[in-house]
Amino acid sequence: MDLNADLGEGFGIWRLGDDEALLDLVTSANVACGFHAGDPATMRRVCAAAAERGVAVGAQVGYRDLAGFGRRHIAYDFAELRDDVLYQLGALDAFCRAYRTRIRYLKPHGALYHAAACDETQAAALVAALNDYDRDLPVLCPPGSVLAQLAQGAGIRVVAEGFADRNYLPNGRLVPRSSPDALVTDPPEVARRAVRMATERVAVTVDGSAIPCPVESICLHGDSPGAVAAAELVRAALIEAGITPTPFS
Amino acid sequence: MDLNADLGEGFGIWRLGDDEALLDLVTSANVACGFHAGDPATMRRVCAAAAERGVAVGAQVGYRDLAGFGRRHIAYDFAELRDDVLYQLGALDAFCRAYRTRIRYLKPHGALYHAAACDETQAAALVAALNDYDRDLPVLCPPGSVLAQLAQGAGIRVVAEGFADRNYLPNGRLVPRSSPDALVTDPPEVARRAVRMATERVAVTVDGSAIPCPVESICLHGDSPGAVAAAELVRAALIEAGITPTPFS
Amino acid sequence: MDLNADLGEGFGIWRLGDDEALLDLVTSANVACGFHAGDPATMRRVCAAAAERGVAVGAQVGYRDLAGFGRRHIAYDFAELRDDVLYQLGALDAFCRAYRTRIRYLKPHGALYHAAACDETQAAALVAALNDYDRDLPVLCPPGSVLAQLAQGAGIRVVAEGFADRNYLPNGRLVPRSSPDALVTDPPEVARRAVRMATERVAVTVDGSAIPCPVESICLHGDSPGAVAAAELVRAALIEAGITPTPFS
Amino acid sequence: MDLNADLGEGFGIWRLGDDEALLDLVTSANVACGFHAGDPATMRRVCAAAAERGVAVGAQVGYRDLAGFGRRHIAYDFAELRDDVLYQLGALDAFCRAYRTRIRYLKPHGALYHAAACDETQAAALVAALNDYDRDLPVLCPPGSVLAQLAQGAGIRVVAEGFADRNYLPNGRLVPRSSPDALVTDPPEVARRAVRMATERVAVTVDGSAIPCPVESICLHGDSPGAVAAAELVRAALIEAGITPTPFS
Repeated sequence: MDLNADLGEGFGIWRLGDDEALLDLVTSANVACGFHAGDPATMRRVCAAAAERGVAVGAQVGYRDLAGFGRRHIAYDFAELRDDVLYQLGALDAFCRAYRTRIRYLKPHGALYHAAACDETQAAALVAALNDYDRDLPVLCPPGSVLAQLAQGAGIRVVAEGFADRNYLPNGRLVPRSSPDALVTDPPEVARRAVRMATERVAVTVDGSAIPCPVESICLHGDSPGAVAAAELVRAALIEAGITPTPFS
Repeated sequence: MDLNADLGEGFGIWRLGDDEALLDLVTSANVACGFHAGDPATMRRVCAAAAERGVAVGAQVGYRDLAGFGRRHIAYDFAELRDDVLYQLGALDAFCRAYRTRIRYLKPHGALYHAAACDETQAAALVAALNDYDRDLPVLCPPGSVLAQLAQGAGIRVVAEGFADRNYLPNGRLVPRSSPDALVTDPPEVARRAVRMATERVAVTVDGSAIPCPVESICLHGDSPGAVAAAELVRAALIEAGITPTPFS
Repeated sequence: MDLNADLGEGFGIWRLGDDEALLDLVTSANVACGFHAGDPATMRRVCAAAAERGVAVGAQVGYRDLAGFGRRHIAYDFAELRDDVLYQLGALDAFCRAYRTRIRYLKPHGALYHAAACDETQAAALVAALNDYDRDLPVLCPPGSVLAQLAQGAGIRVVAEGFADRNYLPNGRLVPRSSPDALVTDPPEVARRAVRMATERVAVTVDGSAIPCPVESICLHGDSPGAVAAAELVRAALIEAGITPTPFS
Repeated sequence: MDLNADLGEGFGIWRLGDDEALLDLVTSANVACGFHAGDPATMRRVCAAAAERGVAVGAQVGYRDLAGFGRRHIAYDFAELRDDVLYQLGALDAFCRAYRTRIRYLKPHGALYHAAACDETQAAALVAALNDYDRDLPVLCPPGSVLAQLAQGAGIRVVAEGFADRNYLPNGRLVPRSSPDALVTDPPEVARRAVRMATERVAVTVDGSAIPCPVESICLHGDSPGAVAAAELVRAALIEAGITPTPFS
């Protein structure tokens, strides 16, 4: 089982989350590429630290919207989005090359993550950018999403990810964030769910039942208070259950 | 002799110069990378058109200053500038890859061009970015500049460029733009100077004498009215003189 | 009858349209405020030229999206949009003050114009910004739009605008731009429609009939080739019909 | 004696310093205006909180350089800088108006602060922006600086500020930050110096002697760990010494 987290999401003088602490816990780092967050100096710092630890670097591509942190849906057309994504892929890869490694996967961020899960135009733009850049790069996304379908159709490897700190609906989707029971906030419970996801390949729904959830990566969140402690608990629980976190790539 | 020009210097809805016309005349295209000008869609368009015509693509890297078009000196520190340049190199290369080619050289833009000619910190940052990205990429810059010296010292190939539409000082430098006789505005005279630069390897000074000017590339300007016609004249004159413009890379 | 046009839509080195020519024709200038286009130097130049000619300055507010020229819908939340609009109002007013005048109205740009016509959240954000800034500023928008309704409900004056170069649907809406007969491209026909709009208070539908269209301002477009000539024709035709273009404000 | 601090220096999702805590301590808030830091939602939040507490709002204007936090010198020309500053003044004032107050002064930020202290062009641009906007707004700056001289010459009130947490040179300038004894890091000592500045009108030099320092405002720093505690100590020491911090405006 792979553990991934969003990293390098500061900009200039501003920081978000504790990149170094998370890099000691995850096996895949979704590195922001400068459009929703991230700047060249931050990208270098995170790529260097990831390379040093053997953590795989993925391109966390987003909308061009620093002010909105990429969380506002933007009605991009296909070509504009494809090109904005291709630009980000190349930019991040330059920092990977500086540390003798390369981008291992793509993961969309924020509103683009959600749009690509259900909007054919935006999902197709991501697939087209991968086609242009490197058809061998996998895409990390929710199983069953439009992006997953289009990527598979284009011969691009899809790596499904799950969330141990989110409740699921019986249909396999996440409980929307607007709902009061969207989040699982008890760290030991998050760790238990991560272990079940890794060993039984199930997710827990809002009514407590288990549904199939065959994911290759679990996403850890790093930007809330206590996030690092919770992530440490997940990693420790997985190891105790005999699962060594390993990059999927 | 190579002919180079700045291209892809629009942004979003805005255009600057006639990229397509210049691409029919030059052998090397200095493509803006998004920091002083250029956006992903423009970068794709220019890279596609350059690849189609066999024109070499160079990274025209600049300061992060769209509002000032990279023409205002910014007191970057070494690491910030190195990383901003590395980011731009990678971003442009992604579009080259989409058209089965790659970046062939680096040329700094505007205030960075001038700073790198005389400022050790900024010149060293450009060299460091090339070291990180690809030590085999040459740098296009004025002969004798600090950038040329540092690049040579680092084992990076330096391609010297000259200007047929600028008067030179006896010491080999350009007459500053603030001077009324900085520019050569008569197109036939520009063409004659280009031919002398290519065949006799001399530049003409403000007092009419010729000084040695052993350059491998002549820079054509494309953003003024009549620029394309003047560039056509240069190219035609070179061909008539038996010089076929060829990429240096 | 007022004539309005979008002005000051360049950025940095880039220009769009012929601001000075249009300022000789219109009575109200929708000046871009720096978010979708426009920069401080351009805002000063247009405000100075408008003040000199007695042209009223309106705040043409847009999304924070230079790369997309404010033409891509962005899913702003209420407070973010209100604050981005308030910021733009204040910024433009500073340049009006420098020329002893002030902002006379607000007009949303591009995707925000369309969103505010039908989306309650975005329309309400514009109204809230006006409430904060100056409840006496009118809003220029399509008659019957959600923005018009909310503004009226808040006691803000609504100035309806019409388009002489667009075909209308029988229900009073514009034929969508995606339709081949969206635009009226024959300048004399555009001028005739402007005169009918000003004298008979009707618009012409796509099937040639006339529908009521009681507008106080006609929007002229300045960014296409031939735009200035077409605008001259409209102004001349109005004057010949005894209508002297006059600011509504 | 007035106490001022830089506030509202986040951007989008990113925060810097503890605005609310500092607003309880200072009498003048230097609010970032969106160019080096600050976004419309942050500007509203800080203006609202300042208005509620009776804290005066000043425009903390900076270079257009979010990535560099306005700390890199930019070689602006006069008109560009004047217009960028005027834009920021207007934008911030809109938020003051929303809370029934207005901008009370201008203070340049970061590299602009330093440039305006010694560079005539940049200092003159600030004065020109004040002339355009409101000649009655004072400027907060170091005593004896070029900005102070030009402002006085233009009839603009100059409010001198001092630093209780910085060592001075015998000539009245600050010990440069590059020097190891630039900063006074012991909070009680900072408080003692603030009291001497307020009561004896002296600053302490690096060799321990006292030099005249007739300032009307003391600048508190809020972005370092322990900053708020140190600022609390300064305020408490002043009050204990019989000085009630009061806005200069």
